[in-house]
Formats: sequence, C-alpha cells, structure tokens
Amino acid sequence: MWSRRRVAHPEPALRPVVAPTGLTKVEFTALTPEPLAFLGQAAALQLEFFEGLALAVMRAPDLAAKEGVSAAAGIALRAHHALIAELRREGVEPVSMMAPFSAGLDRFRAAIAGDDWYELLLAIHLSSGLLDDFSIRLAGGLPADLRTRVRAILGEAALGPRLEAQLLPAIAEIPGLGDRLALWGRRVVGDTLLVARSALRAAERPSHLQDEVEPVFTELIGDHTRRMDALGLTA
Amino acid sequence: MWSRRRVAHPEPALRPVVAPTGLTKVEFTALTPEPLAFLGQAAALQLEFFEGLALAVMRAPDLAAKEGVSAAAGIALRAHHALIAELRREGVEPVSMMAPFSAGLDRFRAAIAGDDWYELLLAIHLSSGLLDDFSIRLAGGLPADLRTRVRAILGEAALGPRLEAQLLPAIAEIPGLGDRLALWGRRVVGDTLLVARSALRAAERPSHLQDEVEPVFTELIGDHTRRMDALGLTA
Repeated sequence: MWSRRRVAHPEPALRPVVAPTGLTKVEFTALTPEPLAFLGQAAALQLEFFEGLALAVMRAPDLAAKEGVSAAAGIALRAHHALIAELRREGVEPVSMMAPFSAGLDRFRAAIAGDDWYELLLAIHLSSGLLDDFSIRLAGGLPADLRTRVRAILGEAALGPRLEAQLLPAIAEIPGLGDRLALWGRRVVGDTLLVARSALRAAERPSHLQDEVEPVFTELIGDHTRRMDALGLTA
Repeated sequence: MWSRRRVAHPEPALRPVVAPTGLTKVEFTALTPEPLAFLGQAAALQLEFFEGLALAVMRAPDLAAKEGVSAAAGIALRAHHALIAELRREGVEPVSMMAPFSAGLDRFRAAIAGDDWYELLLAIHLSSGLLDDFSIRLAGGLPADLRTRVRAILGEAALGPRLEAQLLPAIAEIPGLGDRLALWGRRVVGDTLLVARSALRAAERPSHLQDEVEPVFTELIGDHTRRMDALGLTA
C-alpha cells in the first residue's frame, strides 16, 4: 500500500510571483462544500497525515527522530479526532462521511511514501502544509460557528515546525540530499494539488467560479515555495 | 540497563508488602529501579505500544476499525509524551534513558507483530495490559510525588476497552478466530513476561527478594487470565 509508484505528470507551472498578503488571505466561499462533506474530507486528510507520520516514526533512524516525529503524529491524530467529534456533533457517523474521500486518496498515499525517510517526511510536510491551508480557506463558506471551530482545529494542526526541525539538519549534513529533495518536492506538490483540485471536483463549478479558484491556488503555490525556501530547496 | 545505585542498599529494608484488599494490589517496593531508569523504561514501552497500534491503524480492515484503534494509539502516544516530559522535568535527555531499554525490545516487537490484524491487536491488548500493571506496581517504590504522577499517566493509558471493542465482535463472527487467538495469547504472555522479568534482571536480587517478586507475577498472570476470559478465550 505504501509502495512507491511513479506516474508521470506535468511539472507544476512556472513559479508564480505572489505578493505577501499580510493577514488577509484569499478565501473560497461559493465553492465550500456542505459542512458534512467538508468535515469528512478534512478528517480523512488528517488520518492520512497521521498514518504517514506513524510510518515515519517506525522508520526513524534513531530515538531522537522518533520523538520529534511522534509529536507531529500526535498533532495530526488530535486534529483527526477533533474533526470526527464535529461530525458526531452533527449527528452523523464519521466513517460514512470520510469513506468517499478516503477511497480517492490511494494515489496520494502512494505518492507521499517516498524512497526513504527524508522523502516521506518532506512529502508529509509539503502536502499537509498545502492541504491544511487549502482547508482553512475552504472553510470560509461554512456556517460561522463551525468555521471558527474548524479553523481552530486546523490552526493547531500545523506540523511544519516539527518536520522542518528534522529536515534542516539532515539537508545540511547529508551530501546530495538537498538536490534530491528539491526534485522530490516538485513531484509532491503536483500530487498534492491534484488532491486539492479533486476535492473541488464534486462541486458544481460554473466557469465564472474559476475567478474564485485560481487566486487561491496561486497563493497555495506561493506558500509552498516559501516552505521549500525555508529548507534551502529550490522549488 | 537498570541503575545499580538504587539497589546498592546492602540490605534493602523490605517495606511490608501491602496486604491485598479489594483496592490494594501487591506492589514491588525494594525492586523499584531508580526514577530515571523507571521513566525511561516506561516511556520506551509506551512508544512500543504506540508503534504497534499505528501499524494496526494502517492495516485496519475498514475506517471504523481505524477510528477505534487510532483512539488507542492516541492514548499510548499521550502516555509516552507525558513520561518523556517527566524525564525532561528531571533534567535528563529522554532518549538517553530510553535507549538501553529500547534496544532490548527487538524480540518483543517481532513477537507482537502477529500474522494478521487480530493477532497484532490481541498482542498489544495483552502485553500493554500486563506491562502497564507491572509498571504501576513497580512505581510503588518511587518518591511519592513522582509515584502519584506516574500512576495517573499509566492509569489513563489503559487501552483495554478500546481493543476489546474491536476484538469481541470479530471473535464472535469469524469462525476459528477464537481458537487461533487463544493459542496466540499463550505465546504473547510468555514473551511479555520475559520483558517484565528482564526489566528486573539487572537489579541485584538477593534470594529473599524472590518473596516480593513472585506474588506480583502471580497477580499479573491472574489479570492476564481475566483479560483472556473477557474475550471468551481459554488462557
């Protein structure tokens, strides 16, 4: 299930120039799915991140690495359980809302497994960073109470600092790792954007809504580039 | 792996073994290792349980099973992190205290993997049940403050109800599973008792201290039998 697969896909488009937007970020509103579908999707994603991180704990080169990564695994697991609790609060069986989305994540799961521990870790770092941002913006169209709670859950789910702390020293110390991870990161972002786009696919999407979609993706890619830069990797 | 400092008392003054009552269980006292070694061992065990449960999440037959088992994984991970925090509070690097014990767990790790998901789950259920009880009793000789905190951590770490909830319906529904798991449980308890005994091995153990050890193991095995009975399995 976690085996490596290689599927050719186009390189991401040219790196967009993104102006820093301060506190206000572009949000989806008209494309936000109905709340139960949104929660099911967000819960399924956190479960994917947890499973990837749990694998990273098992494969970790030493106990210190296990500790750092297990902290990240705990963060993803708490977010998953909090989102499941929101589904229960709405009176639905979480599994029923996660299942349709989980089934579509097979390709993604294979894509983020990577060839070694560092590729796995970078893939989780990049994909969780992008998809958490995506979900936070997509939450813009949820009812106000739910939106607030979901953003609190996802805001606490940030894995970045924990994973950067593992990756930065390794990139500095292991010859050639930075070059390899730079290439790997370009593949990962492509697969991650496919997940994000597929999450919008089910929504009715009249062509005029493209005006809403594209600026968000441009910003998501800009944030991705900053995550790569922070690791000294060319995006 | 156990510090010899704690057992350097030439003639350890055996505190009276607590008489079993409805609430009080037999405890170790003279054989409790020094606090840092105890915490390192307990933290390493919770990490093992977490890794086993994380594997069980990945291998789970469906999303409902993933949810039940991931809740158990979260419990073990919280206990692991709480014990690590206790080590930090004592001013030591957790990894340095876990490493000696972790290295000895290879055999145990292989032993609990099992041939399928149900064997893995039963092995974690039985081994965590026994070893958590073991640690709670072994905590009897810790300084009072630490003892209270450790017992609170381990008391919250109980995985039993979550794992029983997964195993009971499967045993009822899958022909032959109960017989297979009954045999498997006997192997698992053997390997688990080896872990418990090896945790005491490094301690100087004058023969008169056997008087303290044996009643505890007798009770631990009795509790194991009750766990098997609760699943309808012959111990």
